Amino acid sequence: MKKIKLGIIGTGLAAKNLHLPALYKLSDKFEITAVCNHTEKKGKDFSALVGNVPVYTDYKKMLKEADIDAVDIALPIELNHEVTMAAFKAGKHVFLEKPLAASIKEGKQLLEAERKYNVTALLAENFRYKQVFCSAKELVKKGKIGKVFAFNWNLYYNVTKKNDYAQTKWRQENKYPGGFVLDAGVHNIAAVRYLFGEIDNGTSYIKSINSKIGEYDTMSFSFEMLTGVNGVYNIYFSVKGHWEDQLLIFGTKGTIELCTNKITLKKEDMPDEIYEYNESFGYYEEFTDFYNAITKKKKPFSTFEEGYIDMVVVIDAINYGIANSKGFIP
Amino acid sequence: MKKIKLGIIGTGLAAKNLHLPALYKLSDKFEITAVCNHTEKKGKDFSALVGNVPVYTDYKKMLKEADIDAVDIALPIELNHEVTMAAFKAGKHVFLEKPLAASIKEGKQLLEAERKYNVTALLAENFRYKQVFCSAKELVKKGKIGKVFAFNWNLYYNVTKKNDYAQTKWRQENKYPGGFVLDAGVHNIAAVRYLFGEIDNGTSYIKSINSKIGEYDTMSFSFEMLTGVNGVYNIYFSVKGHWEDQLLIFGTKGTIELCTNKITLKKEDMPDEIYEYNESFGYYEEFTDFYNAITKKKKPFSTFEEGYIDMVVVIDAINYGIANSKGFIP
Repeated sequence: MKKIKLGIIGTGLAAKNLHLPALYKLSDKFEITAVCNHTEKKGKDFSALVGNVPVYTDYKKMLKEADIDAVDIALPIELNHEVTMAAFKAGKHVFLEKPLAASIKEGKQLLEAERKYNVTALLAENFRYKQVFCSAKELVKKGKIGKVFAFNWNLYYNVTKKNDYAQTKWRQENKYPGGFVLDAGVHNIAAVRYLFGEIDNGTSYIKSINSKIGEYDTMSFSFEMLTGVNGVYNIYFSVKGHWEDQLLIFGTKGTIELCTNKITLKKEDMPDEIYEYNESFGYYEEFTDFYNAITKKKKPFSTFEEGYIDMVVVIDAINYGIANSKGFIP
Repeated sequence: MKKIKLGIIGTGLAAKNLHLPALYKLSDKFEITAVCNHTEKKGKDFSALVGNVPVYTDYKKMLKEADIDAVDIALPIELNHEVTMAAFKAGKHVFLEKPLAASIKEGKQLLEAERKYNVTALLAENFRYKQVFCSAKELVKKGKIGKVFAFNWNLYYNVTKKNDYAQTKWRQENKYPGGFVLDAGVHNIAAVRYLFGEIDNGTSYIKSINSKIGEYDTMSFSFEMLTGVNGVYNIYFSVKGHWEDQLLIFGTKGTIELCTNKITLKKEDMPDEIYEYNESFGYYEEFTDFYNAITKKKKPFSTFEEGYIDMVVVIDAINYGIANSKGFIP
């Protein structure tokens, strides 16, 4: 079986903590043959973890010279457009860490480019590959909670400057709308769309409580799906003393409580059914899908189109919130 | 100390289960001297509990003939206007079970009448007297959680036809907007206004999942206070297998978790502080306030004005939701 020769562009937190563990497990499918970081030392440190492959500080040079079939792009969001365009032009398959782009305009251009070039493009949205959402969807499909009429997702967390991700300068001085609300929010919206279909209309309130971690950290988004199902999504990243990641799905015959990687199926007068998926964050499945898409010349499950809609929904919600809110700053 | 002579108009669930236990404890302040129910047997049954006082089937006759200073009106909502007006005209002090009236128009007329007649009028909204809210307000005022920036109140419950309140015909065939959403919703909005001040703007979605328990049973209301604080209030009364009554108050230094009669004060890196108020539903405090208002000729804490604003907020939210929602019916 021929391995995909993969170049890593951007060797920061996502590449090291999220992608690399999955790629180690998939060493029969991927071979990392080049890495790129604009800071040479960072590139070399990463290269040392993967067999001392060639290190580039200029991604253009890497695209031109390195022995690679595909690239894994894990960069500050505002660089996604430029680097992905260059990779397409160089005929490389692209595995692009979410969100798709720093603006709707750039996202649209990436969609158009993807159609033009005959390469595989996967938007790396791991929530689209997490087993817990797949199982929740199955339970709903099987009618376990009857007909879904509403859901409520609360994501309450205290992101401080001590947080690894919040320490990255490009997140603190975000060159894309919404800060953490966009960066993290696309995950949940991807899962919402995967589970319940498309959003029809909605309203939101948005705030900045701790400006040190980026432009906005607090958004409450209320919406209605095309099906009439009602959703509330609260993404509050400056909550003190209370951690919560809970999606409640309300059906006419029962409720699904989904907390990170655990599902509790609840019904009247019945013992709860519990399903746990402690190992799955979706990265392994993401790269497996990327491999299959390339080798079988088919669309990956998480396309640029899907990622584009995720980001449009979140940016629309952010913009609605900005126009709608008093912009309370304590 | 002179006792207030009290006539009970309407001897149903509220009078028997909510008011009577408080009045027993306040027998030094109130003496029930007459009861009224349009079904004589129901009136007699209640009268037997309070010393076999005179029973009336016509409230007008009671207002004219009975030896009473004040009335406790606990009737189907659509009768509040007519009976309260008559009580005012008869010069009786009025203790009126919430919500104030069946429409904004009738509510307004009651406000005007209250100003005209020189009697005490208390809108019996027990949430305005519950110790748990008073304590939460104190904790916020003391700065225990810093500056409040948002709150989220989830009320998830399965009201079936087996529920005592849902069995009352006037609730099933509600002659006031919103059904259970109005009847129960004014409680939470009263507490929200008590804790956080006035609501500036908001949006909502509303649904009927189980039409057997009244017109609407499911509403999600998102709003912003005058202060810029953001609130979400989900009142879902056809939730299966998941019971929840949780108000989370988010501050810049901590979070208050308020579940029915229990407060948990949560901060980063500190043990939780727990406060419980198992005995307080506010009815005792309500009648005590009514007594003090009458005897000291002062306004009660829960005025008709407050109750009017509570009902206007909920009716506005209901009407917004009706116009805004697809009206999904499974």
